[in-house]
Amino acid sequence: MVIVLSSKVKEVTHVLDRIQEAGFTGYQAGPSTVVVPGNDEKLQEIVGALPQVERVVPIKSPYPLASREFHPENTVINVRGQIIGGSKPVIMAGPCSVESLDNIVEIAQAVKKAGGNVLRGGAFKPRSSPYSFQGHGEEGLKMMAIAREKTGLPIISEVMEPDKVALVAEYVDILQIGARNMQNYPLLRAAGKSGKPVMLKRGLSGTIEEWLMAAEYILAEGNPNVILCERGIRTYETATRNTLDLNAVPVVQHLSHLPIVVDPSHGVGKAQFVRPMARAGIAAGAAGVIVEIHPNPAKAWSDASQTLDFDEFNLMVDDVNRVASALHPELDSARALVHA
Amino acid sequence: MVIVLSSKVKEVTHVLDRIQEAGFTGYQAGPSTVVVPGNDEKLQEIVGALPQVERVVPIKSPYPLASREFHPENTVINVRGQIIGGSKPVIMAGPCSVESLDNIVEIAQAVKKAGGNVLRGGAFKPRSSPYSFQGHGEEGLKMMAIAREKTGLPIISEVMEPDKVALVAEYVDILQIGARNMQNYPLLRAAGKSGKPVMLKRGLSGTIEEWLMAAEYILAEGNPNVILCERGIRTYETATRNTLDLNAVPVVQHLSHLPIVVDPSHGVGKAQFVRPMARAGIAAGAAGVIVEIHPNPAKAWSDASQTLDFDEFNLMVDDVNRVASALHPELDSARALVHA
Amino acid sequence: MVIVLSSKVKEVTHVLDRIQEAGFTGYQAGPSTVVVPGNDEKLQEIVGALPQVERVVPIKSPYPLASREFHPENTVINVRGQIIGGSKPVIMAGPCSVESLDNIVEIAQAVKKAGGNVLRGGAFKPRSSPYSFQGHGEEGLKMMAIAREKTGLPIISEVMEPDKVALVAEYVDILQIGARNMQNYPLLRAAGKSGKPVMLKRGLSGTIEEWLMAAEYILAEGNPNVILCERGIRTYETATRNTLDLNAVPVVQHLSHLPIVVDPSHGVGKAQFVRPMARAGIAAGAAGVIVEIHPNPAKAWSDASQTLDFDEFNLMVDDVNRVASALHPELDSARALVHA
Amino acid sequence: MVIVLSSKVKEVTHVLDRIQEAGFTGYQAGPSTVVVPGNDEKLQEIVGALPQVERVVPIKSPYPLASREFHPENTVINVRGQIIGGSKPVIMAGPCSVESLDNIVEIAQAVKKAGGNVLRGGAFKPRSSPYSFQGHGEEGLKMMAIAREKTGLPIISEVMEPDKVALVAEYVDILQIGARNMQNYPLLRAAGKSGKPVMLKRGLSGTIEEWLMAAEYILAEGNPNVILCERGIRTYETATRNTLDLNAVPVVQHLSHLPIVVDPSHGVGKAQFVRPMARAGIAAGAAGVIVEIHPNPAKAWSDASQTLDFDEFNLMVDDVNRVASALHPELDSARALVHA
Repeated sequence: MVIVLSSKVKEVTHVLDRIQEAGFTGYQAGPSTVVVPGNDEKLQEIVGALPQVERVVPIKSPYPLASREFHPENTVINVRGQIIGGSKPVIMAGPCSVESLDNIVEIAQAVKKAGGNVLRGGAFKPRSSPYSFQGHGEEGLKMMAIAREKTGLPIISEVMEPDKVALVAEYVDILQIGARNMQNYPLLRAAGKSGKPVMLKRGLSGTIEEWLMAAEYILAEGNPNVILCERGIRTYETATRNTLDLNAVPVVQHLSHLPIVVDPSHGVGKAQFVRPMARAGIAAGAAGVIVEIHPNPAKAWSDASQTLDFDEFNLMVDDVNRVASALHPELDSARALVHA
Repeated sequence: MVIVLSSKVKEVTHVLDRIQEAGFTGYQAGPSTVVVPGNDEKLQEIVGALPQVERVVPIKSPYPLASREFHPENTVINVRGQIIGGSKPVIMAGPCSVESLDNIVEIAQAVKKAGGNVLRGGAFKPRSSPYSFQGHGEEGLKMMAIAREKTGLPIISEVMEPDKVALVAEYVDILQIGARNMQNYPLLRAAGKSGKPVMLKRGLSGTIEEWLMAAEYILAEGNPNVILCERGIRTYETATRNTLDLNAVPVVQHLSHLPIVVDPSHGVGKAQFVRPMARAGIAAGAAGVIVEIHPNPAKAWSDASQTLDFDEFNLMVDDVNRVASALHPELDSARALVHA
Repeated sequence: MVIVLSSKVKEVTHVLDRIQEAGFTGYQAGPSTVVVPGNDEKLQEIVGALPQVERVVPIKSPYPLASREFHPENTVINVRGQIIGGSKPVIMAGPCSVESLDNIVEIAQAVKKAGGNVLRGGAFKPRSSPYSFQGHGEEGLKMMAIAREKTGLPIISEVMEPDKVALVAEYVDILQIGARNMQNYPLLRAAGKSGKPVMLKRGLSGTIEEWLMAAEYILAEGNPNVILCERGIRTYETATRNTLDLNAVPVVQHLSHLPIVVDPSHGVGKAQFVRPMARAGIAAGAAGVIVEIHPNPAKAWSDASQTLDFDEFNLMVDDVNRVASALHPELDSARALVHA
Repeated sequence: MVIVLSSKVKEVTHVLDRIQEAGFTGYQAGPSTVVVPGNDEKLQEIVGALPQVERVVPIKSPYPLASREFHPENTVINVRGQIIGGSKPVIMAGPCSVESLDNIVEIAQAVKKAGGNVLRGGAFKPRSSPYSFQGHGEEGLKMMAIAREKTGLPIISEVMEPDKVALVAEYVDILQIGARNMQNYPLLRAAGKSGKPVMLKRGLSGTIEEWLMAAEYILAEGNPNVILCERGIRTYETATRNTLDLNAVPVVQHLSHLPIVVDPSHGVGKAQFVRPMARAGIAAGAAGVIVEIHPNPAKAWSDASQTLDFDEFNLMVDDVNRVASALHPELDSARALVHA
């Protein structure tokens, strides 16, 4: 169950104590929320009668805070004025690795010009081999921050270990947790504590339930701003790098209130298939897409084969907007207003 | 390589003989086509010089007739006036099992009314248990034929064994080969020989290459009218019945000229997710969708949980058309003309 | 439930009629067995009281005849004196494709000499491409029959379509149903009706439950002699051709009374790993192994990379016997007797 | 390539400088080893001529230090006198979670008495839910250390984050890195730097290549004592918790010199199948097994369904020894000596 306290309550100790007296364990999740596993009816009665408690929500799912049972309306996240989770699709784009200041600024300007919303870029890179380029680290984040200054676009970048969360959070607007770290619980907790919005990628063999339970680790630290990212699962098929699982989009939206974006670049792994899969992701109902772009993909330092050039990116943005408008006609008029 | 003979040539024996003399084996595929595995340059020269030969196409892919290398333009199939493979999406719908004459006629009329194009229905049913209802067999096909008479809709139904191909082909407009039989080669050959259009479903663990090679079996019998159907692959994820692999849509379109439709009913296995996945399939570029519908899904004899009722079906058709129009604006004016 | 009739009963019509009168459907499976889906208590009472009925066995599993609930002791099959399903492991070996009479006789003699029990060989071959060698067909079976004559070894070969079951059954001692046909229900029924022992391979993405339900199709035709063969499932791992799933061995033995053999040749797809996986299969409890061997694997017409030469085969047989003896010490003395 | 320096060389700076001058990057891996990605022939010549260099080994595999190309003989690790990687199988056993001092001591004594070699136990537990018991942490490690004192058995326990490596390494003899963290590169580096032997579990969807590249991260820190652990991969099959992939055993042994053990407890997830799969693992060639045991599995705090009781464990040890002796007859006499 989730216990929501009155917003006037300053501390939850008293409530936690009563829960413990009743023989249960409560977990504080944010200033006015407490989770108790299970839905014991007696306990519901006890805490429901406390003056500090506003409401008690019994919940069947194993990820109470992430579930729609607890939070029926969609979570909408505002990052420097960009809305993630509304009906207008959010476009996140940028290079796999931040390569140089000029390069990231050039890309950021292309994202901005195409109507994109967020700049992505890798600074701390998880690489299969210890002998591969591991990213520019903090230097890369500084370059991204300058690109943000020049374009106004919020920035997102990956963090790989709990100890680096504070450092990365100093620069980025959204922390990214990569597929390999979906169940890196200390990292999830640290990202939760940072208070920054977090984009949590689905693991290569993560079930939707495990993924939502991983999101619960972040939410349980009192951080409500979690974005899920479907980036392809591992199957037997080798014609694509991974299998972008768009089924996850409506399923997640049924089970959870958290916004979900799709990453067709990693999902299919070949640039020529990114555009149709981006369209399909939006048609499935995704809140947005995240893609890899580069002025000259063939020369990109990593992920060259799945990276769009600027022309392909512009076409993709156009397609994504067409599909979104077809399904949400109100967007068209909004767009007309912007252009007017 | 594929050897295309002049259309005036009445028999290919002479060409096959010359191929054999050169030490190779040629396979006749239709009245004026011969396939020889590999691309031996000497042989290309020899057959290229024969007066009966119009052109010789060297081909790298293991499925020459199914490949875009051989046939660059899309295959478009006309079934009783319904166009499969054009920019207008084709909607195939109907019950999992044909239950009764009244039932199938009612459903056919609903398909027609919603703007659907083909009536589906199961008469010979592959069932996991020998003790489950195995379909009405020929009686079911007769009911479908009556439904066709009343609505003008062409009909599609599954055939499960080579011996039954002639019988099923007597009734249906399109033969369906199910996922379990994707690599049932005697069945593929028999369906190829029937001359009827064939819809070939992807096997639960069929790779895209294996699937196209299975299509090649049908094409190699001289039957050019093959429709591919993506219906979900088997992965570790259990939140959906299968994992509808929409990535296959652009990949197949890149590799092959054959039209591909998607089956979100089997792909996700839950009615509530069929509509978004149908939209997504069209956005990915599919030539159409095939779905299970029933006036009262809860009472359907099989696949109840993944079956749409008529209202949901109408909403789905509307969504599919919106997405198609957004990506192919010319369709809108065509539709306007129809309605005018 | 399974209804076992007294062995004196000549026909089951009366029993089937009473079942129908009670509102259920009974399926005759052999001369004295009837299956009724479900375990209705009232019906158990009714049929239990019939004089023709010996016993009624309520069964929870979806494959009553294949389940241990119905048949607690192991099924043991005697094929020309070779025992399949006892504690002594059975060794089936031979070429992927039967190539020539000399070749198959040479191989059969090697199998015999090494202490093998059954000669395998492909005559009707399921091939991914319509342009690949499809096997010698009946000629191949004739060659195998001669090899049997010369060595006394029973023979096993694949049948791919219902129409060919009678032909193949004329020659072979065990019908093989391949992985691609695990759910080819008309083929399963035809194999069941043939009365011959049938080895049913697990499909590439067949669950253990689906596999046992496929076996049920054969058993339901009154044919009790089904051997299961684990031959590798399809997973994401590409270091091996398939993933030989040895876990299936103890799981199947827990759920079913049918003997299970393992096929490490297809399971791993590389000759150098066949021997350790054969050993492991026996250690897991398998009733035997089936492997591909050839006097000169590099020149084998198909599956060259996974085929053992005779020396490797001898080492494998030795290993298999060591492991079997370690786990069943009584085998050692039996072997000593044979050699004495 | 791997560059092995003379053991007399005190520092590698000079060699690294020469590599850099030649336009390459060298990575120091331990006191006398340097890795340079690729096998540039010119560079081989240059460094081969340096007086500090003993030999230069060109290597094709992407994990040079883990490959058999570099290190042809098996790695054998001695942990407090227990030999991991020899022909005698090593048995690691213990509870999923350390529960209490009495409990862990009782289990350690059972392991010792059965002839087991290493005590396992979870202190820091990765749990899917943030609201589940997360382990006793350092207290649990202290209890394990006491159990070690009382039995002489070395201990192994999991570490989940780089920051805790020093703490865990203070207590344990072998650091365990769990399946979820196979590609947690900061953790791999930290474990490598600790100098302690590390057991690296394969990720649920880790390919064998990715796994060996993960091991390379540890080796690249100069830590040669890596043990691989196959613990089941994620497939479509739900009859078992995971699919223990024994094929990985011979494949890894072909590609790498590192010892590999198997974990049938997590691999199948059901106690009744642990014993046959442990036997099969040893028959496949594994260096040992790691299993979960508990005096009363039904009351274990976690993983109850896959945990053996002491009697089952004793039977398993006996089976494992029988199989090992059958394949390595020299072990029998060694055992006889011990018992004498």
